[in-house]
Amino acid sequence: MKVAVVGVGLIGGSIGLAARQRLGAHVVGWDPSAGALEAAVARGAIVEACASLVDAVGDADFAFVAAPVHVLAGVVSEVLAVAGPQCVVTDVGSVKRAVAGAVSNPRFIGGHPLAGAETAGVEHARADLFTDATWYLTPTPNTEGSAFERLHRLITRIGAWPTAVEPETHDVIMASVSHLPHVLANVLVAQAARVLGEERLPATGPSFRDVTRVAGANSVVWGGIYAANADALVAAIDDLVARLSHARDMLAAGDAAGIAEWNDGARDDRRRLLEAGLAGGEVHELRVLVPNRPGIVAEIALALGRETIDIVDMGLYPSSGSHGTVALWIRGAVVAQQAERLVRELGLEVVRA
Amino acid sequence: MKVAVVGVGLIGGSIGLAARQRLGAHVVGWDPSAGALEAAVARGAIVEACASLVDAVGDADFAFVAAPVHVLAGVVSEVLAVAGPQCVVTDVGSVKRAVAGAVSNPRFIGGHPLAGAETAGVEHARADLFTDATWYLTPTPNTEGSAFERLHRLITRIGAWPTAVEPETHDVIMASVSHLPHVLANVLVAQAARVLGEERLPATGPSFRDVTRVAGANSVVWGGIYAANADALVAAIDDLVARLSHARDMLAAGDAAGIAEWNDGARDDRRRLLEAGLAGGEVHELRVLVPNRPGIVAEIALALGRETIDIVDMGLYPSSGSHGTVALWIRGAVVAQQAERLVRELGLEVVRA
Repeated sequence: MKVAVVGVGLIGGSIGLAARQRLGAHVVGWDPSAGALEAAVARGAIVEACASLVDAVGDADFAFVAAPVHVLAGVVSEVLAVAGPQCVVTDVGSVKRAVAGAVSNPRFIGGHPLAGAETAGVEHARADLFTDATWYLTPTPNTEGSAFERLHRLITRIGAWPTAVEPETHDVIMASVSHLPHVLANVLVAQAARVLGEERLPATGPSFRDVTRVAGANSVVWGGIYAANADALVAAIDDLVARLSHARDMLAAGDAAGIAEWNDGARDDRRRLLEAGLAGGEVHELRVLVPNRPGIVAEIALALGRETIDIVDMGLYPSSGSHGTVALWIRGAVVAQQAERLVRELGLEVVRA
Repeated sequence: MKVAVVGVGLIGGSIGLAARQRLGAHVVGWDPSAGALEAAVARGAIVEACASLVDAVGDADFAFVAAPVHVLAGVVSEVLAVAGPQCVVTDVGSVKRAVAGAVSNPRFIGGHPLAGAETAGVEHARADLFTDATWYLTPTPNTEGSAFERLHRLITRIGAWPTAVEPETHDVIMASVSHLPHVLANVLVAQAARVLGEERLPATGPSFRDVTRVAGANSVVWGGIYAANADALVAAIDDLVARLSHARDMLAAGDAAGIAEWNDGARDDRRRLLEAGLAGGEVHELRVLVPNRPGIVAEIALALGRETIDIVDMGLYPSSGSHGTVALWIRGAVVAQQAERLVRELGLEVVRA
């Protein structure tokens, strides 16, 4: 298996390391920076630094585009133009609507691993960066089922949890759980640094360090993310300000009961969010009889993704007739039952293996 | 040395463990909950569960009051009423104005270690909870110099960094770097849990988990903190909302240059905040000739604390005449020079050892 990494920074380099160490893949790389390519080879993230994009992706089985969000659609299109017909192309951008709107190719599936580190650059790449991380995928009705299956399996095998989602939903979620925390971190360090003028810098406790860890992330990368998701982020800020104002008014009024109820609610919300990421149990197999038509795999994946059901693994078994079979492995008996119900609601027949 | 811990939870228990393991102190405890006392003995945080407050503090050298903020002033007063004349009394509350306003005793010094954990209760107490943590102390002009010196040394020996600060300044700092992050964590989990209705809980990335780690902290403890520091917290929220609105308007206007400048500023602010906590270098000794009058030690400690200068260790050498000597150990040549200048500005004579 040949994997091409287009853009060898922290994320691209970690994909290369994981594909080499976990799958024994032949990993090659391309990057506009010769220095980054050299560092990637030195790090062992790629075994070959390619002189051109076509050298990297022409005969690759997978191409991962890890470029800044503001140039993503252009680079993905260039990769698709020179990739062979066997090549599944994906990206790792933090915003998905722009690339999804610009690229419509059955072999392209947008992606976004929820992983990162304080330190950028391929010299900090790690094979385990994606272990147990959610990896969003944005298949569309136009997506080739076998391309989705192959990418899904690859991501599972490097240790992450693929979850299908619509690009619009993805961007709203990210505005709230990633981009807004970055904005807040920036605002909080600015406030703390100036709270007592320039003379005294306050000692900072653990909660402050947690909240501000991502302050002042790389301006090129994050400028692009903020711009690409500005509308969703503005809406998230407006909602946050309204919620802050509510808490502020309770504090100003000395409303102890209201504060306690609000705080208890936050505890419950946090527990629900954590539990959603911690579903466990045995893996169950569902076999779904599907018509041989485009988009059916994306439709199933998105239906389960909407209910936060992770597909541990999947397999496509096309037949020569009008129908084929999709096997889905789902963790936990209750979740598997829920998945079965959702698939039936799509009008499909399910067999429990 | 006998140390009494009044209130044996996570913080009180960790003080007990640290005093036993690092100083070989005889540590006793009192708590309104018999179950908590039992657990504290089982954990090894105290060696003796006292039946009454006077049993615990009557002949103690130090009493640490670790009670919720809303009952703090009352408990500290009770402890001072039954503690012997040799006993230095302090507390660990997260808000300092209320207790400083209610208690005026030369042997009481307010305190607040910037340490904590996600998990409350003495069963999670650790001897190293305070290692390298800032430990705020709020001496007043009324504070007995030798009481401050003894407490300062004790806290240094359990591994923390004592820093003197006025109660008002402490509460403004905490509103910004601790209480506001807690409010934000609450608001963010509520937003994320509801961003897509009840049907889909979004997967959350590392930045979101960092920001929301403290969401829904114990309502009894935090209700008291919010109430005691409501005015400073309301001001911090108002400032935050103004800063958020500024960022929001730049995003909505697509002001890429403004966003980049703002983001770079946050990076610089974060670096300054981190560097302030990482001063290094050799320890230098300053000897200060001081008049034998009350409040002089607090005055020196506060003057250095205002400039974020940590006193690594201190020693008091009273003489029978009108003057004595205070020895200060300061880390780093430049910082020691700055400290010398500040002490001279108080009208005091300094000798470099």
